[in-house]
Amino acid sequence: MSKLRFRISMSLDGFVAGPDQSLDNPLGIGGEGLHDWVVSLEVWRAPHGLPGGEVNESSTVVEEEQAGIGATIMGRNMFGGHPGPWNADGPWNGWWGDDPPFHHPVFVITHHAREPLELKGGTTFTFVTEGIESALERAREAARGQDVSLAGGADAAQQYLRAGLVDEMDLHLVPVLLGSGERLFEEVGTDLHGLELVRSVAAPGVTHLKFARR
Amino acid sequence: MSKLRFRISMSLDGFVAGPDQSLDNPLGIGGEGLHDWVVSLEVWRAPHGLPGGEVNESSTVVEEEQAGIGATIMGRNMFGGHPGPWNADGPWNGWWGDDPPFHHPVFVITHHAREPLELKGGTTFTFVTEGIESALERAREAARGQDVSLAGGADAAQQYLRAGLVDEMDLHLVPVLLGSGERLFEEVGTDLHGLELVRSVAAPGVTHLKFARR
Repeated sequence: MSKLRFRISMSLDGFVAGPDQSLDNPLGIGGEGLHDWVVSLEVWRAPHGLPGGEVNESSTVVEEEQAGIGATIMGRNMFGGHPGPWNADGPWNGWWGDDPPFHHPVFVITHHAREPLELKGGTTFTFVTEGIESALERAREAARGQDVSLAGGADAAQQYLRAGLVDEMDLHLVPVLLGSGERLFEEVGTDLHGLELVRSVAAPGVTHLKFARR
Repeated sequence: MSKLRFRISMSLDGFVAGPDQSLDNPLGIGGEGLHDWVVSLEVWRAPHGLPGGEVNESSTVVEEEQAGIGATIMGRNMFGGHPGPWNADGPWNGWWGDDPPFHHPVFVITHHAREPLELKGGTTFTFVTEGIESALERAREAARGQDVSLAGGADAAQQYLRAGLVDEMDLHLVPVLLGSGERLFEEVGTDLHGLELVRSVAAPGVTHLKFARR
């Protein structure tokens, strides 16, 4: 069965986004710093159409993460734009421009129905209003035997973690403090549903913690 | 100048003690599990008078931590017993029995004055009512050129972290969720005062993150 693989960057004090998230600052104050380690990598820059980049201990981790993914799930807040119903004329189409870096079906969990959005390069956003299990079922089907990536944000991740539906979790622990913002493990309880730490990798500016069922 | 070296075990969700701390359960529900990794080590068991124990990747980390320490600082809550003024007849003498494993001067930060308590094996508890800077000054003097260990708990650690007085920090990240309890980085803000991640060590049941000034 195809796995649900969750990956996210988290600060030392447990935040995945800083305070005061906005359209101009989608990750909140200090939140962008959580991704410095990955944005500097060649393996991240190439699929985003950016030149150059480093190769270091994180490269293999990111390559592994990207391999074998056939569909992505994300929450409405990560898809972004604005809360509430979609604007009737010219709704928000995501942060990623005309040619998003996914190149596979993406399922957005939302309370507000909307027609699928087909963009360049094989990325189609489908809006799911029937909850996390339905989104996972549809993503698995669309992934055609490959795994499904859970991209975030915090709220969607918490729902999947609480339900015990996450099969693998890559936590990229960034040695900074954000002080406030969105915590990853808020109201997730104490049950990791069999997820155990199976690997730690030290890399420049980040420690990669991989959790899986043994 | 002798360094202030702080070390503590923290859960994945940022807690250093679980909920409902009490005399019977000083680390709160689930909190004891934060120390399983160290209690199983020979290098920890020997100075506590316990036989056996493992040798693994954590052993070197713990040996390093114990080396070169001439005095320890802890908060009143970690020394334990009861809140408020000391009982006049038979006050609390710590968790560690007649022969505590410190074997050097220990300074307890408290609001309640008390005569020093001299126990076996070179451990003397001195009660400091003049605040964290005074405790550090006295501990440094007592350490005679060696470093000072900041043992915790959360509240004392937060005061030293906020003041930028911590020179090295060893975070032992344990891959469990406690859900609630005492957070380490509560009201510490966003400033690590120059502390940077200088080493990560993967070990059974724990990832060791060492922070220092470069």
